[in-house]
Amino acid sequence: MPQDDFYMALAINNAKSMKGQTEPNPLVGSVIVNGGRVVGIGAHLKAGEPHAEIHALRMAGDAARGGTIYVTLEPCSHHGRTGPCAEAIVNAGLKKVVIATLDPNPLVSGNGVAILERAGIDVKVGVCEEEARQMNEVFNLFITEKRPFITLKAASTLDGKIATRSLDSKWITSEEARLDVHQLRSENQAILVGVGTVVEDDPELTARIPDGRNPLRIVLDSSLRISLDSKIVADGLAETWIFTAQKVDSEKKAALEQLGISVFETSGLKQVDVRDVVRILGEKSISSLFIEGGGTVNAAFLEAGLVDKTVFYFAPKLIGGKQAPTFIEGMGYDLMKDAVELERGEFVKIGKDFKFTGYPVKKEQNS
Amino acid sequence: MPQDDFYMALAINNAKSMKGQTEPNPLVGSVIVNGGRVVGIGAHLKAGEPHAEIHALRMAGDAARGGTIYVTLEPCSHHGRTGPCAEAIVNAGLKKVVIATLDPNPLVSGNGVAILERAGIDVKVGVCEEEARQMNEVFNLFITEKRPFITLKAASTLDGKIATRSLDSKWITSEEARLDVHQLRSENQAILVGVGTVVEDDPELTARIPDGRNPLRIVLDSSLRISLDSKIVADGLAETWIFTAQKVDSEKKAALEQLGISVFETSGLKQVDVRDVVRILGEKSISSLFIEGGGTVNAAFLEAGLVDKTVFYFAPKLIGGKQAPTFIEGMGYDLMKDAVELERGEFVKIGKDFKFTGYPVKKEQNS
Repeated sequence: MPQDDFYMALAINNAKSMKGQTEPNPLVGSVIVNGGRVVGIGAHLKAGEPHAEIHALRMAGDAARGGTIYVTLEPCSHHGRTGPCAEAIVNAGLKKVVIATLDPNPLVSGNGVAILERAGIDVKVGVCEEEARQMNEVFNLFITEKRPFITLKAASTLDGKIATRSLDSKWITSEEARLDVHQLRSENQAILVGVGTVVEDDPELTARIPDGRNPLRIVLDSSLRISLDSKIVADGLAETWIFTAQKVDSEKKAALEQLGISVFETSGLKQVDVRDVVRILGEKSISSLFIEGGGTVNAAFLEAGLVDKTVFYFAPKLIGGKQAPTFIEGMGYDLMKDAVELERGEFVKIGKDFKFTGYPVKKEQNS
Repeated sequence: MPQDDFYMALAINNAKSMKGQTEPNPLVGSVIVNGGRVVGIGAHLKAGEPHAEIHALRMAGDAARGGTIYVTLEPCSHHGRTGPCAEAIVNAGLKKVVIATLDPNPLVSGNGVAILERAGIDVKVGVCEEEARQMNEVFNLFITEKRPFITLKAASTLDGKIATRSLDSKWITSEEARLDVHQLRSENQAILVGVGTVVEDDPELTARIPDGRNPLRIVLDSSLRISLDSKIVADGLAETWIFTAQKVDSEKKAALEQLGISVFETSGLKQVDVRDVVRILGEKSISSLFIEGGGTVNAAFLEAGLVDKTVFYFAPKLIGGKQAPTFIEGMGYDLMKDAVELERGEFVKIGKDFKFTGYPVKKEQNS
């Protein structure tokens, strides 16, 4: 491994170890090397506390002078709580700065590098870029698009069925896979289902793992069919928001609001407009959304180009049935060439099941 | 790796290298070790030629005396063209015989071991058993069940669709995956589709690879809908057999037979009875069958418990559509607990796609 990659991998590893504790800030790690040895390491630990570079500079002290600093994200140029990191690096007398990714915010991207270069420092950008970008995929998208990073999750048999023809779905996947889902729930700020799922299964939609953080629960319910006795309406275990089409029953709406549920009307005539849902969530600073819908809800997000990542759990089972529901339904695409392609796809085994992770290739929108 | 495993792995590797050239005989390899070094290696090369042990004994000559012979399949006890291998081993003065698998034929299984033990030779059975059994999975099933080993193949999007709602299916998978299918076709004695596939796609069903052997082509066509102009009826590139339900149009049948097509009536009233198909193929000494049907044909074999292996190619694409066909349809199972489970499942990447191989766990038949 080239030396730059070696030290950046250490910085990335430290950054990733803080997953879940830096929000709304990104994960960042830093390493300072001088004379062939590490003289300082740092990571951003918590919003409001020092950035990764500052921790590393403090640890290095005078040993930073003349050395090289590795940092997974471009040093900031703004006067926040800890001053611009780019200036701190200049002041500490570093000779070289190696950066994995530029700042994703187009308003400030490149500004940190400019400060460093003006001071005569040698700057190298793009070492371990892909990995560093991916660890902050949620943050990066939210910063640039002002909407949540959307993960579409499904659990199906190998032949794509999410239930039998008689809608039996307990259980498709193994306990290990279901535990993994609870982990992902706790890592997302909001979880979304269709009202069909609520009516069929009456789920809690909580993260049932130790120290699991329950996400905001979101239901798409065009005509407010949801029962006031549903667990997610009545159990108070987490906040619940309902998105509807236009002109819903105002009494039902009032009754739900009385129970502490927020109800948002979207511009959809008969169906909830998912673009409105996503826009509103962005305005409410929801940076990550985990979709656990049925085939209709999943298709609506997919066809709107609003899926950033897919996580599919496949049980090594076959259920068959022309009538058995699959995890992406709706109208679907007419031609194979219009199919949504998934890049960076990979399978890993989890318990008895197989977990696929992939990223939809963004297409030009037809909207 | 334990020493026995090491030598048996060498024997298995030699056996596997003869894939496709030993039929109707199984793949067998053998290694003779004496004084810590290999003194002979052998493999069965071709039906009618010596068994693996004989080749290894000839190579070893006098050096076999007092040594250990490794063989992937129990030495035979019958007087074939090359005499019983078990006796040849006794005569050569081997001290120990290590065997991966016993003979799968219940009529002779254990007989070779008995001859060896009666001669006072130390016999060990079961080294690398699973791998040795798997390399002869087709042979083993045909010998014991007198019917072809049945592989169910499908190529679908990740959401389980084999075509769009408008039945566009070109192409789901990449060229690499399609090439792999041609390889599997050439390794199977027969390939089977439903008449729907013939009507929709008019396929050739040949193995389009260098030196590819075209399998026998089989069509399930309950009421003889097939066109006399279909490629597989008219092109003469390989033999074609058609299986029907009862009481089909005798003129159409005669016209097909006139063109060299064999037509078999099964006992099915309206649909072809797939159990009859498989029984008849067994009687005709077809030892391997590759099913490339649509969802209905695939479901018929699956529900009849007549799938021995599954090979599914998944393209990392999503097509959606409630009406889009999936690769296992039919009625399907009513309850998730009745789903067909696949064991020894594994994914490998092939081109842009993912290939899943698995083995249905055999259930008690409800027939």
